[in-house]
Amino acid sequence: MASVSEQMELIKRGVDEILPEEELVRKLESGCPLKVKAGFDPTAPDLHLGHTVLINKLRQFQELDHEVLFLIGDFTGMIGDPTGKNTTRPSLTKEEVLKNARTYEQQIFKILDPKKTTVLFNSSWMQQMNAADLIQLAAKHTVARMLERDDFNKRYKSGQMIAIHELLYPLVQGYDSVVLQADVELGGTDQKFNLLVGRQLQEAYGQSPQVILTMPILEGLNGMQKMSKSLNNYVGVSDSPDQMFGKFMSVSDELMWRYFELLSFRPIAETEQFKADVEAGKNPRDIKFLIAEEITARFHSKEAAAAARIGFVAQFQQGTIPDDIPEVDIHAGEGGILLANLLKDVGLVGSTSEAYRMAKQGAVKMNGEKLPDARVKVTAGQPAVFQVGKRRFARVTVR
Amino acid sequence: MASVSEQMELIKRGVDEILPEEELVRKLESGCPLKVKAGFDPTAPDLHLGHTVLINKLRQFQELDHEVLFLIGDFTGMIGDPTGKNTTRPSLTKEEVLKNARTYEQQIFKILDPKKTTVLFNSSWMQQMNAADLIQLAAKHTVARMLERDDFNKRYKSGQMIAIHELLYPLVQGYDSVVLQADVELGGTDQKFNLLVGRQLQEAYGQSPQVILTMPILEGLNGMQKMSKSLNNYVGVSDSPDQMFGKFMSVSDELMWRYFELLSFRPIAETEQFKADVEAGKNPRDIKFLIAEEITARFHSKEAAAAARIGFVAQFQQGTIPDDIPEVDIHAGEGGILLANLLKDVGLVGSTSEAYRMAKQGAVKMNGEKLPDARVKVTAGQPAVFQVGKRRFARVTVR
Repeated sequence: MASVSEQMELIKRGVDEILPEEELVRKLESGCPLKVKAGFDPTAPDLHLGHTVLINKLRQFQELDHEVLFLIGDFTGMIGDPTGKNTTRPSLTKEEVLKNARTYEQQIFKILDPKKTTVLFNSSWMQQMNAADLIQLAAKHTVARMLERDDFNKRYKSGQMIAIHELLYPLVQGYDSVVLQADVELGGTDQKFNLLVGRQLQEAYGQSPQVILTMPILEGLNGMQKMSKSLNNYVGVSDSPDQMFGKFMSVSDELMWRYFELLSFRPIAETEQFKADVEAGKNPRDIKFLIAEEITARFHSKEAAAAARIGFVAQFQQGTIPDDIPEVDIHAGEGGILLANLLKDVGLVGSTSEAYRMAKQGAVKMNGEKLPDARVKVTAGQPAVFQVGKRRFARVTVR
Repeated sequence: MASVSEQMELIKRGVDEILPEEELVRKLESGCPLKVKAGFDPTAPDLHLGHTVLINKLRQFQELDHEVLFLIGDFTGMIGDPTGKNTTRPSLTKEEVLKNARTYEQQIFKILDPKKTTVLFNSSWMQQMNAADLIQLAAKHTVARMLERDDFNKRYKSGQMIAIHELLYPLVQGYDSVVLQADVELGGTDQKFNLLVGRQLQEAYGQSPQVILTMPILEGLNGMQKMSKSLNNYVGVSDSPDQMFGKFMSVSDELMWRYFELLSFRPIAETEQFKADVEAGKNPRDIKFLIAEEITARFHSKEAAAAARIGFVAQFQQGTIPDDIPEVDIHAGEGGILLANLLKDVGLVGSTSEAYRMAKQGAVKMNGEKLPDARVKVTAGQPAVFQVGKRRFARVTVR
């Protein structure tokens, strides 16, 4: 296990607040693996990179050998919005919750280590709870403190309706920490109040209270507002490699550093070196390639990320590839296929000698980059766009 | 069944508010027996006459052939005060609740007709309720409206703590009306807010909302504050006949009329006649005797009330009877026993001729009233105090 100060350095990367920091140090000093809780909405399993800021922090705790409790708050999700006012929040069936959970797992295990992650549903204890227990729970918090929460406060003061059950939801979330005996709870800065309720309830139930750790809300691609689907400034976890790579390449040089801080797993020192390089005159675009490729590789594969990079270069730096080019699969032997043979087999040239000649003239490109020699071998892998002259294209997958 | 206007006349006697009155009229016009609910605290089964103001009104509904739902709010009582701040409100066991319920029944069935009364415990449905159901219930009311309740409002504004579960209790009480499909709910004026919550919840659950009827809080014997045990200005339902009678006789002439309104079952017209009589010069004490005797008879018996009256007259109007006088039982034949024989048999005179002489001199009294002729017959009944001269007393029961 890393030393406490090494652990703190990694844990503090990119965080907004740790409350209280000295308690976290004390918990780490115990040398025992900590239970690190984070709660997720059961209705929105289609994650974007904004959500992964938190998940990345969970991963860092895992790297330090702590235990992640990935909590799906399905209990309140299954109730839905009882006021019926919020039609975008319908109640979910058990089947829908499980389906969403599977989608979550597909997405988060690209970041988290499944062996150090426990996926939990708060319905498993909340459905057992009866009304009397909930009343006992509600006795442990006051109306005045609850109305201090920013959104409640604004609504109360401006005369907007707050239904009484809304005061119960933070208590349910806090009670989850009691049940799980969480040592640390992570959330966005907008969750700070709720995380503190958990801390306070654990004390009321005689437990050592959790440390809370808030992560900043990630800015969207335009760098102005938070990343969100409705603002269409997001990178979806299930975006295609090309989409993902292209979106990263579209951000400003300034926002790029923010993304390095919150999304990259490269050591901080390395990022510092990149900044120095740019200050010394290096093209920031070349650094942007690195983060675009790192994140694309995380959610797809190294090969897909490399191909996306090549595709991006081809499309945006070297001219445009038409949309409706033919798709061809060809089978290569051990060791790959000769480029001249490939071009002939897929019908981009009439003969291998035409292939050699055109390549020599600089008229053969793969993913927008010139291949001057048709004697190179192409090996199996991701599809690539081959081009001969100005008009002949084929997207070829070598198997 | 009485006409709607006759019913309304009886129902409106002594009430503080009926909300909305026109809905009550409409419900009565249906001709169906109404479900009339009133909720009682499971912790205080030792009733005083202040509590009976409400029970008397329930009885009047019974006289009009409606159905009384006597609801014991044991669910919250069994939770107790979860904050632990109120040590006078410990949580009750099921056994204690049932014991208290039996004490209630002993007391209320002196007023209510058991055949038209259903005693219910809200634990029977609230213990089945789970946390999710309670959250759904809490969604039907708002924080702002709940904080309009007088006591909450004062506490919130003055910074005194309100625990969140306190907002749930009025909802539980209101939900009882939903479960019972109450047509009318009765309560003290201090319960108005809670009764209205029930009305609002019934609407939210798609029911025809209950009419609420509030009864004034009865003044205590001193006529100043409300009747309460802690102020020691109360008449307990289980006070002895003599205590009860004596306490009624101690109230002011003005308060007497209030007690007629809220405690007597005499027709209103009769009370009006009494007032006229007093204005015309009649001693109000004689009217006070009537209410003291009516209420004492209600909780004991006619005979006990008559004896209490006689005892009161003897003790307070005609001088003082010593405490330690001999108790004697004597057996009378059919038609009673001659006073002269009685006095001789119990040893108050040496001979019947002494009895005749002492009576003629005005020295023989029964319950403080002179009996000038020892030839009268004394019939079997309640014990009476016989006195000869200044010092000879005996409390005699003729059997």
